[in-house]
Amino acid sequence: MDIENKESENSLEGYRGLARELLDKSKVKIGQRVIVDADDEFRVEGLLIPRYEHADEEHIVLKLKSGYNIGIDVKKIGSLSRTGKGHPVKEDNIPESPKIRVFTRSAAKVLLMSTGGTIASRIDYRTGAVHPALSAEDLRSAIPELESIASIEPEVVFSTYSENISPSHWQSLSERIVSRSKERFSGFVIMIGTDTLAYVSAALSFSMIGLSQPVICVGSQRSSDRPSSDSALNLKAAVLVAARFARSGVYVAMHANENDDDIAIHFGTRVRKNHTSRRDAFRSIDSDYAALVRGQEIVINDQQNGDASLKPSDDFKLKTKFERSVSLIKFHPGFDSRVLDFLLREGKVKGIIIEGTGLGHVSHNIISSINGLISEGVFVGMTSQCIWGHVDLNVYDTGRDLIRAGVVPLGNLFGETAFAKLSWVLGNFQPEKWPAIMQESIIGEQTARLFVK
Amino acid sequence: MDIENKESENSLEGYRGLARELLDKSKVKIGQRVIVDADDEFRVEGLLIPRYEHADEEHIVLKLKSGYNIGIDVKKIGSLSRTGKGHPVKEDNIPESPKIRVFTRSAAKVLLMSTGGTIASRIDYRTGAVHPALSAEDLRSAIPELESIASIEPEVVFSTYSENISPSHWQSLSERIVSRSKERFSGFVIMIGTDTLAYVSAALSFSMIGLSQPVICVGSQRSSDRPSSDSALNLKAAVLVAARFARSGVYVAMHANENDDDIAIHFGTRVRKNHTSRRDAFRSIDSDYAALVRGQEIVINDQQNGDASLKPSDDFKLKTKFERSVSLIKFHPGFDSRVLDFLLREGKVKGIIIEGTGLGHVSHNIISSINGLISEGVFVGMTSQCIWGHVDLNVYDTGRDLIRAGVVPLGNLFGETAFAKLSWVLGNFQPEKWPAIMQESIIGEQTARLFVK
Repeated sequence: MDIENKESENSLEGYRGLARELLDKSKVKIGQRVIVDADDEFRVEGLLIPRYEHADEEHIVLKLKSGYNIGIDVKKIGSLSRTGKGHPVKEDNIPESPKIRVFTRSAAKVLLMSTGGTIASRIDYRTGAVHPALSAEDLRSAIPELESIASIEPEVVFSTYSENISPSHWQSLSERIVSRSKERFSGFVIMIGTDTLAYVSAALSFSMIGLSQPVICVGSQRSSDRPSSDSALNLKAAVLVAARFARSGVYVAMHANENDDDIAIHFGTRVRKNHTSRRDAFRSIDSDYAALVRGQEIVINDQQNGDASLKPSDDFKLKTKFERSVSLIKFHPGFDSRVLDFLLREGKVKGIIIEGTGLGHVSHNIISSINGLISEGVFVGMTSQCIWGHVDLNVYDTGRDLIRAGVVPLGNLFGETAFAKLSWVLGNFQPEKWPAIMQESIIGEQTARLFVK
Repeated sequence: MDIENKESENSLEGYRGLARELLDKSKVKIGQRVIVDADDEFRVEGLLIPRYEHADEEHIVLKLKSGYNIGIDVKKIGSLSRTGKGHPVKEDNIPESPKIRVFTRSAAKVLLMSTGGTIASRIDYRTGAVHPALSAEDLRSAIPELESIASIEPEVVFSTYSENISPSHWQSLSERIVSRSKERFSGFVIMIGTDTLAYVSAALSFSMIGLSQPVICVGSQRSSDRPSSDSALNLKAAVLVAARFARSGVYVAMHANENDDDIAIHFGTRVRKNHTSRRDAFRSIDSDYAALVRGQEIVINDQQNGDASLKPSDDFKLKTKFERSVSLIKFHPGFDSRVLDFLLREGKVKGIIIEGTGLGHVSHNIISSINGLISEGVFVGMTSQCIWGHVDLNVYDTGRDLIRAGVVPLGNLFGETAFAKLSWVLGNFQPEKWPAIMQESIIGEQTARLFVK
């Protein structure tokens, strides 16, 4: 309540300096429709939207009816007024980049699947909060130049923040892609929230083994109607890769750095969200990305560590089930071993990934609970909370005790990928195969020990 | 069992190429005492020790009685034989670096506290495993040049792998430092395993507020009798900083990169073990390190983000208790909310740190369990599993729901530091003060939002 009141009172949120002076003088507020007259250069009408926290002081931002946001240099503005008071103008009289409105239809056909998240969100101008609201169709019309890259078919699969996406969503999404893969799409783009994007890309990397088209997961860190939004660039890159990439597999398309030039195409099993807010929050771990998108070009990264030549056996192809009774546990000092007993007894858990310390360790006093889990048939796999590097249970006594208890060391799978793989392995294969499949690098999800970036 | 057999059969482990040929020809095995005769240059006697996995093929490594390891170029070796067969020589006839044996006693006095871990470990030559074995006294004699930096007083506080170190150890270690701080030490060095070193450095950062001397936590990634060991350099840097640093506070001294030149002195609350095996595994998060040690020099980092000018109130000084009933939970897709109910009902937990997704989120279906915890007086703090960046519960609906439930957002404390701070806050302060103290940046444990390295 407090928050809402605070936000709605602050009706020129984010505007400072020159821009603020102009807005104050012109008596317009955020959310109002305005006309900007820049002498002989252009006139444009749109909705005044808030500026991002660290925005510069020299531009105001209007949302056009087309969905575009444009930033206008206040020094170029001759007059600014609410609509009705000024000259009537044609909306969407975009002053720059007319070429982006070219609707050249490409031969490539891409299925643009929406699941929710910031990339498909609108900001609420009253409260400042972001809600999942846009459909794939809305976004397609908001970024019309997508059509110059490929013919786009939009589909809303579900609409939720990605923190609510669970293994059962992974399964329905996988089944939906398989069912639509019979149509002649060059590739699939999945718009998804960034919170659990890396879990989803890892999960799909396994369930989509055998799919001949690439699947590109894409999100954005800033919603599409903020001036600093990364959604249009990320989405264009994702569509480009889905349309033209000659390789199959599951990838993540997100900003490679804080600039608006390069979009990294990460391997779905080797990527992690490593920052809460930066546009380049996603990073490849113990690996390099598969490619970079720069403008209309896909630059394949020859230094990358993924093995595109791997040919997974037919046993792994298009297995779309995911087990729900799996758990990811981060060990910590003083960890209460009864949590493990509870997961066995009440949680009916079938598999657990432990993020141990260092090379893959836990304190000696929880090893008996781990023994208990394994003796009841629960799979226990070890990763490291270090995130980078391989576990090794042969160096220290603690690791040897864990090996004796039947814990399976998982190389350099980090927690998120190990967890997604476990859910897939337990959903599709018999228990006697679990340890071998979990340790195998089926699609390059394990990378070489000596990879150093 | 399998492992031990495998290892003991492999009696020239790690030796390949030229070095292996010489050893085969000379019929010596790892663990045997040998004499090396390098024509007119030197003779030396020592124990043949295994080589590190990726070692070169041109050196053999001997452990001398002094504790030194030396690598000897096989091309320089005239003869190699087991002791008893060759010429008797004086042990420790070290062919290089005689200057490191200068015993200049310094005015500064440093307490060298040992708790176990790789830095105080020996390799078992039979099995290849590493055991905590060396005492602080052993290490002091193994690295005699420490005495040229400061007068060293060794003390074994306990001896365990750091994965076994719990909040009760943090408390006993804190109490021990306070009790010895009345003596005239320039500073304290704590040798500790790297697995939970960052948890311990964070914990001590709080319990040692008000201590006038610096406390330097130091570990090593490779045990002191491996040729690639980082223990001597890390330890020398730690002692140097403990002897000479003009600032108080708790720091971590570890390799700044893979070379043997710079040792980073990280802030105790801003450091994390980010790699399972690299020597530069420790990294400062959303911060820069406080200083670099290069040779005998301490280079203060003016770009660093810590605020040495902070003056914590007397209320925070030398509070050495740590609450044991605290938990660190990493949220994951499909997280079973009953784990939270269990921690409340059976675990009698008093505080929980959640590593949420992105800006600090969890799925909507566990919010009622969080409500349940908070209504019973349990402190619930939110961090992000992204590790880098600030949480922000005001951007999305999920965050607002968590704020309403009473969850406390913890800025850019990452999980490990948040957990250690929580244990300290709950151990020393009344419940009504918990939220404010957890959100305050008492000693610079929170860093600025705009810090970008």
